[in-house]
Amino acid sequence: MHVAIFGAAGMIGRKLGQHLARTGALGASGIAALTLADVVDAEKPAGFSGKLAVTSLDIADPGAAERVVATRPDVIFHLAAIVSGEAEADFEKGYRINLDGTRHLLEAVRRQGLAAPYRPRFVFASSIAVFGAPFPAKIGDEFFTTPLTSYGTQKAMSELLLGDYSRRGFLDGIAIRLPTICIRPGKPNKAASGFFSNILREPLAGADAVLPVSDEVRHWHASPRAAVGFLAHAATMDLAPLGARRALSMPGLSATVAEQIAALKRVAGDKAVRLIRREPDATIIRIVDGWPRDFDTRRALALGFKADASFDEIIRLHIEDELGGKPPVLR
Amino acid sequence: MHVAIFGAAGMIGRKLGQHLARTGALGASGIAALTLADVVDAEKPAGFSGKLAVTSLDIADPGAAERVVATRPDVIFHLAAIVSGEAEADFEKGYRINLDGTRHLLEAVRRQGLAAPYRPRFVFASSIAVFGAPFPAKIGDEFFTTPLTSYGTQKAMSELLLGDYSRRGFLDGIAIRLPTICIRPGKPNKAASGFFSNILREPLAGADAVLPVSDEVRHWHASPRAAVGFLAHAATMDLAPLGARRALSMPGLSATVAEQIAALKRVAGDKAVRLIRREPDATIIRIVDGWPRDFDTRRALALGFKADASFDEIIRLHIEDELGGKPPVLR
Repeated sequence: MHVAIFGAAGMIGRKLGQHLARTGALGASGIAALTLADVVDAEKPAGFSGKLAVTSLDIADPGAAERVVATRPDVIFHLAAIVSGEAEADFEKGYRINLDGTRHLLEAVRRQGLAAPYRPRFVFASSIAVFGAPFPAKIGDEFFTTPLTSYGTQKAMSELLLGDYSRRGFLDGIAIRLPTICIRPGKPNKAASGFFSNILREPLAGADAVLPVSDEVRHWHASPRAAVGFLAHAATMDLAPLGARRALSMPGLSATVAEQIAALKRVAGDKAVRLIRREPDATIIRIVDGWPRDFDTRRALALGFKADASFDEIIRLHIEDELGGKPPVLR
Repeated sequence: MHVAIFGAAGMIGRKLGQHLARTGALGASGIAALTLADVVDAEKPAGFSGKLAVTSLDIADPGAAERVVATRPDVIFHLAAIVSGEAEADFEKGYRINLDGTRHLLEAVRRQGLAAPYRPRFVFASSIAVFGAPFPAKIGDEFFTTPLTSYGTQKAMSELLLGDYSRRGFLDGIAIRLPTICIRPGKPNKAASGFFSNILREPLAGADAVLPVSDEVRHWHASPRAAVGFLAHAATMDLAPLGARRALSMPGLSATVAEQIAALKRVAGDKAVRLIRREPDATIIRIVDGWPRDFDTRRALALGFKADASFDEIIRLHIEDELGGKPPVLR
């Protein structure tokens, strides 16, 4: 089996590549070839015994995606995108990468199929940003998509394209809407959502973190490992039960900031919790107020997608995957 | 005020042009200039005292739309599209006209605004084809869009674009989802929905008509005059109450075929009804089975959109507008 990842240098793309290289399989199928594509060269994952190709390309260039698709991967993961903040700041770039890029990729697959039968599994990483406030208490899969960002608009449009290309039989597609990833590894960044990870990751590392919203704020989370699990499951599951409705929200964990902090206390103690500093930020409070808090994901659960069990587990996974099994704050 | 209609040679575009030419106004504003654009030259409407421009252009050509938008119309009606059947038969053409055409038009407006402030009212004719079965008994505005045709996909994607361009302040847009137009004037055509009009229009003209489905089939209708009314209202109403949710289903009339025929009997008598021949067609039965039957349009009604009062009225409007006040079957 040949697997291609577009957006392989991003945080989730990298973890997915590492997972596939390490396990050497997707479901019951061995992976003979792995192609990692991104705008920069993706890091080579360790432990892969098959044929590995790393390629840098601009997904907004139609010919570029076509060159990879011409190698006829059996599974295509499409994670390439510029993030919400950048798509909002640079309108044209957002549409060029997030909408046109997706369309070029889908078109490359369709055109391959015109030459000789070809219908790869196509897994698209969508986002809960396709939804815009006001919401019901729990957002179900039948709630309409009214994005409040250009990024969310581009993701919702891409979901529609994916549905039509699947219905037409050009590919076998599924769009999975990822929750906010927590704990996001790396440095604190300026994303409005950054604090959800910062208030856990930094204290675990023995560093200060700023909490800009109230403890009552509720949000929707998934660990990096759960996200990789969603992608792998989407690549191998039977898609027939989806019918024409190919986009679905992934099962995350709905938790308040207070619940996140309580989990941190259970796992890493008071010393970690004392590193969180409360500094309310009116701008972030306003932005976060428009974000989804909870979802009804019965459909995804029935289809075999697995959520994180608890925030304690999310923190333990981070300690295992990023901190060598022991958080510095406890050393 | 300068008004431009893209798709001015189509059935609704022509009737809208005639209406605007005859009344010389949109709401409280007089129309000084009217631009009629389509892929063929639109017929010049009678009775217009302002400046009339008729232009033929291909909306899929970015420069073409730009030339009209450069004249900075205050109101743009976008009705240009290829129909469902053609978009399904010719995949590439459907996306070129119905998606790229819409995007070129929106982009032309945005680019005008980069040169000097410009934020026209933009009325987009969308379709109930954005929805795909299975449906709730009544489809509300918060039901998700899962089109089962490429045409519906292109309309749903255009709605999303319109929403984002409006949110960004590039234009003041509204997408109105028109019901099936009944009674559609002209000759019987091969559209699967054609019979809804044929079974009324043909008998009124003293000609035979074929009914390919059962009398129990329920569908969602609006007269051509109601459709023109929706468009005119959308062009002049206050859009602030819409917030970011710029797409809405228009109030149609939900009626069974039996109710249509009963209305025909009341208006034109048994002689007309006897001209309807029942010839079940398995293909059409299957297609129509996947179509919406009824909508919850409280939101549109609260915003001042007006539905046809009854099928009797729909038939009487047709007699008035198309048959000089007296149907041939009664002459």
